[in-house]
Amino acid sequence: MSRTISESLYDGYAQQFDAAAIVAEEKTGFQDLLIFDSKMHGRVLVLDGIIQLTELDEFTYSEMLAHPPVFALGGIGHAIIVGGGDGAVAEEILKHPDVKSVDLVDIDGRVVELSKQHLGGVHNGVFDDPRLSVHTVDAFEFLASDKAQGRYDLIVADRPDPVGPAEVLFGQSFYDRVRNALSDRGVAVFQTGVPIYQPEEFTDAIALLSKAFPKVGSYLTVTPTYIGGQMALTWASKGTDLPAATTDDDLRKRFAAARIETRYYNPATHRAAFALPPFIEALVPSTEG
Amino acid sequence: MSRTISESLYDGYAQQFDAAAIVAEEKTGFQDLLIFDSKMHGRVLVLDGIIQLTELDEFTYSEMLAHPPVFALGGIGHAIIVGGGDGAVAEEILKHPDVKSVDLVDIDGRVVELSKQHLGGVHNGVFDDPRLSVHTVDAFEFLASDKAQGRYDLIVADRPDPVGPAEVLFGQSFYDRVRNALSDRGVAVFQTGVPIYQPEEFTDAIALLSKAFPKVGSYLTVTPTYIGGQMALTWASKGTDLPAATTDDDLRKRFAAARIETRYYNPATHRAAFALPPFIEALVPSTEG
Repeated sequence: MSRTISESLYDGYAQQFDAAAIVAEEKTGFQDLLIFDSKMHGRVLVLDGIIQLTELDEFTYSEMLAHPPVFALGGIGHAIIVGGGDGAVAEEILKHPDVKSVDLVDIDGRVVELSKQHLGGVHNGVFDDPRLSVHTVDAFEFLASDKAQGRYDLIVADRPDPVGPAEVLFGQSFYDRVRNALSDRGVAVFQTGVPIYQPEEFTDAIALLSKAFPKVGSYLTVTPTYIGGQMALTWASKGTDLPAATTDDDLRKRFAAARIETRYYNPATHRAAFALPPFIEALVPSTEG
Repeated sequence: MSRTISESLYDGYAQQFDAAAIVAEEKTGFQDLLIFDSKMHGRVLVLDGIIQLTELDEFTYSEMLAHPPVFALGGIGHAIIVGGGDGAVAEEILKHPDVKSVDLVDIDGRVVELSKQHLGGVHNGVFDDPRLSVHTVDAFEFLASDKAQGRYDLIVADRPDPVGPAEVLFGQSFYDRVRNALSDRGVAVFQTGVPIYQPEEFTDAIALLSKAFPKVGSYLTVTPTYIGGQMALTWASKGTDLPAATTDDDLRKRFAAARIETRYYNPATHRAAFALPPFIEALVPSTEG
């Protein structure tokens, strides 16, 4: 018997999935976790009623958080993922053989455990990669530790929406800690919402980021089950200009040399992602002053 | 009291809107028509249970059907819209002052009437433009008329999904008629579905189009309420290569000179739209032979 899973992230608008089977369902101590098999989207992970990923379309999100910064920098050493207990973003970063280490910091160990067990189609065994270290602690604290200072060439904030326990991951002091953990050449990338449905979230995040970082900009990806069309990913750095960091020609050479398999990312979609429609550009706050 | 409007275009997946008010609801003789006011999306037009447009996001669709071909060609004379009774695409085309005429051919006169009356926020009074002629006849027949042969610099197939009465708008003889109605420099643009959810519709349309036209290619737009993220728009011509028809520099000059207001289209999103992710490129059939 099938169950209907309804996501009501917005007032007066919902998406509904028929669940062919419930794979896991529990209160983890941090949140309500649900993993189910859907007809169209394969296996789906839901936290506190919000779709986190589906097997069908997670590549559109995890590839675009990982590959644009890695290819623009021409390779990275150490990376950290804030959240991301499902392993999707870690898998993309670790497709690059010269990445030295990835710290995956997700406060909820049950998300990691149940993802390991049930979301093989998402993480593809990345938890067995010796370069990956999983830390089930508060990322906000982890970033403030001595060993984190200036360590990371790539910081990915694979954070949920700014409600409940994740709210601290959207504040000024979080952004300050991210900046301090970044290497001089490094780039941080943040999920900053779906501009057409969450314009304030996008504008507010850029305003706060601009106080912590000299360079800030946004690019887009399209993840069907993060309803709203384009999702904004916002990058920030101490000096690196993400779109200007590499030529088209170098990008093509690096991508060809890397021989990694991607379904959304390629040098053309990398470039295209930085083209913001006027309605999104209009939401970018002025950063003077 | 609010009513829940559910769209179940796909098996096991639906989107739901709370309707604050029903504006119009009738069987037109061709289809079931519904216009309602939603909380998040403004006014919404539904035909046979499928969302046709919402005030919130129709610009992402109608701008991208109209402006890329017009700017790439550096201006057009006569245009025709197959379907589009809501006036959204006509409004975009007629933002260009040197367009001589637009024939809007929608078989369902009630869609035109009720859109005129209730969707002013979408068409912005375009039905009063003397360059617009509305024909409530079968577009399949209209395109075969003597006066249509070789007439149009732009043909937009703003068609619904290939079910019911619209099925004929997806067949080989429709594409042949479109080709014959096109001027030598002209470009036709077709809605070809949402590749991640409708891969066969996309692949099949390109295969048929490639039999009728020497040049065929696709570009993308993102319309939240056409759930599935990217929607493919496929262009076809007798010789014009749409992405190669203009330089970046000309595109910027033409856009600046046109002084039209857009919310999705600009020269950067024009270029970016032609970057297909690998999972969509993989659906493009080989056209050799």
